[in-house]
Amino acid sequence: MNTKTIGEEMWKAEEKVPADMFHCLYGAIVAEYWRFHDDNDSGADVSNAANTRLDKIGHQMGCRLVEGVCAKAPPSVSVFLASPTTGFVQAGEVLVKLLFKQLMNASVQVSAVDNFKVIVTLPNDLTRNVQLPDNARNHLSYLSIWCGILRGAMEMLNWRVNVTVVSDMLLGDSKNEVEMTLIDRLHDAKPRLED
Amino acid sequence: MNTKTIGEEMWKAEEKVPADMFHCLYGAIVAEYWRFHDDNDSGADVSNAANTRLDKIGHQMGCRLVEGVCAKAPPSVSVFLASPTTGFVQAGEVLVKLLFKQLMNASVQVSAVDNFKVIVTLPNDLTRNVQLPDNARNHLSYLSIWCGILRGAMEMLNWRVNVTVVSDMLLGDSKNEVEMTLIDRLHDAKPRLED
Repeated sequence: MNTKTIGEEMWKAEEKVPADMFHCLYGAIVAEYWRFHDDNDSGADVSNAANTRLDKIGHQMGCRLVEGVCAKAPPSVSVFLASPTTGFVQAGEVLVKLLFKQLMNASVQVSAVDNFKVIVTLPNDLTRNVQLPDNARNHLSYLSIWCGILRGAMEMLNWRVNVTVVSDMLLGDSKNEVEMTLIDRLHDAKPRLED
Repeated sequence: MNTKTIGEEMWKAEEKVPADMFHCLYGAIVAEYWRFHDDNDSGADVSNAANTRLDKIGHQMGCRLVEGVCAKAPPSVSVFLASPTTGFVQAGEVLVKLLFKQLMNASVQVSAVDNFKVIVTLPNDLTRNVQLPDNARNHLSYLSIWCGILRGAMEMLNWRVNVTVVSDMLLGDSKNEVEMTLIDRLHDAKPRLED
């Protein structure tokens, strides 16, 4: 499936706002969460609390954004994604590639480790112009929201997954990478998109 | 000053992302704040806490977004905005109109009540497709972030203002309106943009 061409058409058809507005909003939220929990919690709890809340926000976004993917992609894509014969790695690759193409006009790399695990190399842009508060460095994960987005999007297709950050450019790594691991498939349920 | 034409050029030059991504992120934050404070606080505090935090996030965004306006508008605009001879109503009108044109390609109406107060009619789009949690209705103000954005943006030009929601379409009003009232001018300081 040519996710690049399909995703590009979807990207072009989207109504847009300046990227700055999105990055600015996300940056402000990360900073506010950090400050809030820094004032109200102690030690390692701060990063845990802030990262968990960012992941939750992402999860809610993912659940909604995947509807956009399925509504705007050609019908064959939705059929492929919802089919019980489509494997985890294949579904994950198509969904993640389309999602990033549609949302950021970005091509991401999805590499299968085995049948139950993929590594997603996220765009460098995600951490562009970001400065974490000094005491948040090494604790706060700016990529948490994308973990949540992928988790929510996959869940809507009945794949329950765990998504964690593997490399983070804000922590000095050379790329932004997350690992998506299959927990289980909700075999009995129809994909929630068809509800 | 033709803020519409200038703003349109600025809008066109912006790198963009899908509007859905912004609306989805903001919607998820509002819902998450509401749930967090609903679980941890009681009664009227919930809306107060959530609205205050949304306003704070907006304030941080406003401080940063105004830099974009001044950097991307023709030099005459920055000179006008930063000049000590420009009045509150004039500065407010130009800044608010440019900000909304640049960020949302939207034309907003700014009406002076007197020399110290303006009413800004915000785009209907801001509350499009928004559903507040049932128990948040009549409490949570979805427009709080825009109050913060305007407050932050004006502050960077040395106008300390108070911004409150006057009408909110999510509460059944026919339009989205905020009132921006001058508190004081930081006469001694140079506009912070020139730092």
